[in-house]
Amino acid sequence: MESKQQSETAGKPIRCKAAVCRKAGEALVIEEIEVDPPQAFEVRIKILCTSLCHTDVTFWKLNVGPVAVFPRIFGHEAVGVVESVGENVEEVQEGDRVLPVFHPDCGECRDCKSPKSNSCSSFPITHLNGVSRDGTSRFRDSNGDVLHHFLFVSSFTEYTVVDIANIVKINSLIPVDKACLLSCGVSTGVGAALKVAAVEEGSTVAIFGLGAVGLAVAEGARLRGASKIIGVDLNPEKFEVGKKFGITNFINPTNCSGKSVSEVIKEMTDGGADYCFECIGLVSSMQEAIFSSQPGWGRTVILGVEMHGTPLSISTLEIMRGRTVGGSIFGGIKTKSDIPFLVKKYLDQELNLDGFISHEVNFQDINKAFDLLLQGKSVRCIIWMDK
Amino acid sequence: MESKQQSETAGKPIRCKAAVCRKAGEALVIEEIEVDPPQAFEVRIKILCTSLCHTDVTFWKLNVGPVAVFPRIFGHEAVGVVESVGENVEEVQEGDRVLPVFHPDCGECRDCKSPKSNSCSSFPITHLNGVSRDGTSRFRDSNGDVLHHFLFVSSFTEYTVVDIANIVKINSLIPVDKACLLSCGVSTGVGAALKVAAVEEGSTVAIFGLGAVGLAVAEGARLRGASKIIGVDLNPEKFEVGKKFGITNFINPTNCSGKSVSEVIKEMTDGGADYCFECIGLVSSMQEAIFSSQPGWGRTVILGVEMHGTPLSISTLEIMRGRTVGGSIFGGIKTKSDIPFLVKKYLDQELNLDGFISHEVNFQDINKAFDLLLQGKSVRCIIWMDK
Repeated sequence: MESKQQSETAGKPIRCKAAVCRKAGEALVIEEIEVDPPQAFEVRIKILCTSLCHTDVTFWKLNVGPVAVFPRIFGHEAVGVVESVGENVEEVQEGDRVLPVFHPDCGECRDCKSPKSNSCSSFPITHLNGVSRDGTSRFRDSNGDVLHHFLFVSSFTEYTVVDIANIVKINSLIPVDKACLLSCGVSTGVGAALKVAAVEEGSTVAIFGLGAVGLAVAEGARLRGASKIIGVDLNPEKFEVGKKFGITNFINPTNCSGKSVSEVIKEMTDGGADYCFECIGLVSSMQEAIFSSQPGWGRTVILGVEMHGTPLSISTLEIMRGRTVGGSIFGGIKTKSDIPFLVKKYLDQELNLDGFISHEVNFQDINKAFDLLLQGKSVRCIIWMDK
Repeated sequence: MESKQQSETAGKPIRCKAAVCRKAGEALVIEEIEVDPPQAFEVRIKILCTSLCHTDVTFWKLNVGPVAVFPRIFGHEAVGVVESVGENVEEVQEGDRVLPVFHPDCGECRDCKSPKSNSCSSFPITHLNGVSRDGTSRFRDSNGDVLHHFLFVSSFTEYTVVDIANIVKINSLIPVDKACLLSCGVSTGVGAALKVAAVEEGSTVAIFGLGAVGLAVAEGARLRGASKIIGVDLNPEKFEVGKKFGITNFINPTNCSGKSVSEVIKEMTDGGADYCFECIGLVSSMQEAIFSSQPGWGRTVILGVEMHGTPLSISTLEIMRGRTVGGSIFGGIKTKSDIPFLVKKYLDQELNLDGFISHEVNFQDINKAFDLLLQGKSVRCIIWMDK
């Protein structure tokens, strides 16, 4: 094996600052922690910046069930620099600009080899609390007690350890605050439009929920030349934000003159939208999305994660009218191949990423990022590690 | 307008024999009826032979609701010869061999013009009891009382009147008993495999319910080169029939050693079938079909008509694992373009139609066809009009 440049810290634990969540729903606390060296197939990364996604907040609130494990280091949208690598890691080396991504891409399993799937079957999303390959932790607090990982990333820390299956090297020309958005929400929405639905030029699109994922769906539909992009949200401020991403029409469900949202969409689209996207995670909204889709060919894509265990109940006759319902995790994006493609789209000035960044905070103010998202004020708040 | 050859009966009512259903679930009675001349956009057809489909039996049993209208002439899988045409009919003329088809294809609406849809929006399936364009009847009994149509075809009569949107001219080289099968069930199944799912070479397929539609799905999957075609049915005799259509594996749900059908299919297909088809109309079977489909890309097509109004309840997490659920009426088949294509496939000795014909009866014995289907003995029973 050729000799590689090695950082002074390689092979040793690193002491650094992390925002630790000690208990569900409680403010994060900046603590000094110890981060173990990467083991085989692992990479230790210095985080440059990270952003807060709704999924962080969802699990931060969650206080029951097998995945509600504390103390824990949240955060899964981030960009960093490789500090050191473990054995068997050839794909990246010290100094590389990388995105850690919750969605693995081993490159070797049937799913990763298939152009149809992005659901790596070698590393199913089961070890939510640890590093993906073995489910153990690389974090300890100042008492030597284990701190749990989150979604194989844990980016609310100066240093983290991530499995190589969850790492993608990116072109360092993209500004880091734009790059980190591609780790989760924005890629999910853009991917759903480009890959899962494969929105066609001139088609009509309806998007339920205009958080970052819904806005990113609009951006993807805009890139594909959709003729009408309808946004549905309870917050009228979202329409102004949405215009930046190509949203042409806005529906506030509380202001439909007694009509249902699907009735309004059918009127706007001559019978139904070609593509509907549910980005909230509510079955009532999923049902409206399906009703809003064009009989004959309308396609509904479910992106919102339903967290209450409520099943989706649909009329089979509505489905038999030629409609399709599908879903995906991470918008059908393959971590290692599709994220570099989206980076290129940004560098080619086609993909709008700047519009997603509504706020920025320093790491020590990370709880402000939570407040802004909980209040519905932010789309994406960038959290800078070195400020 | 050029002068056309005219039959002696053109423009006049025709007295002929029909098998009339006077009351839901009661044996049909051969009566002498009067068939009006075709009105504008209509065609009067002499039926050569017809076959019995499950949908006839379903509506024959149905004694409540707005479509349970009697007395009525059932039958919708048939082949005939044009006896005369009404005004504005240029597409066919006297003597043409035609299939009457329940599924209209006006050729002019947005849906008929789109390659994506087969759901004609000019003539939605609402006038189930009459001729499609105006919903009225062309049949009277010997007392002069109205006899209702069924599914725009009504083929259990020597003569019927059908809208031109529901007529397709076919190559007369195909034997009539094989041709009539293409009016409904067989086209539905083959079309679902070829068009709706677009089954790929080497893929795995699971089919729930091995009636004519399910067997036709197998035939379509066989034509596409599927590597494994799994049939699921409670009747073990269906496996022998299914082998003719390429079914490679059989599952009897009552004989799965305590496993669910989806568990067995997952074992047979390394995690799930690429394509699943539900051809029964039971939501429990639809759920099993979805569970049986491969996460990442598995596609389930619903063909069975759910008649109890029970909604399909599905876990959104199962859908989000990259699965898709869709449905179609008539297997995505466009009446005027796809049926001639299937006729050609038969004449080219690629499509097996002969295997669907399990029984034949003379018209006066039509009730035997009902008995055979109700007992699960027949796949398709041909009813000959002139014997």
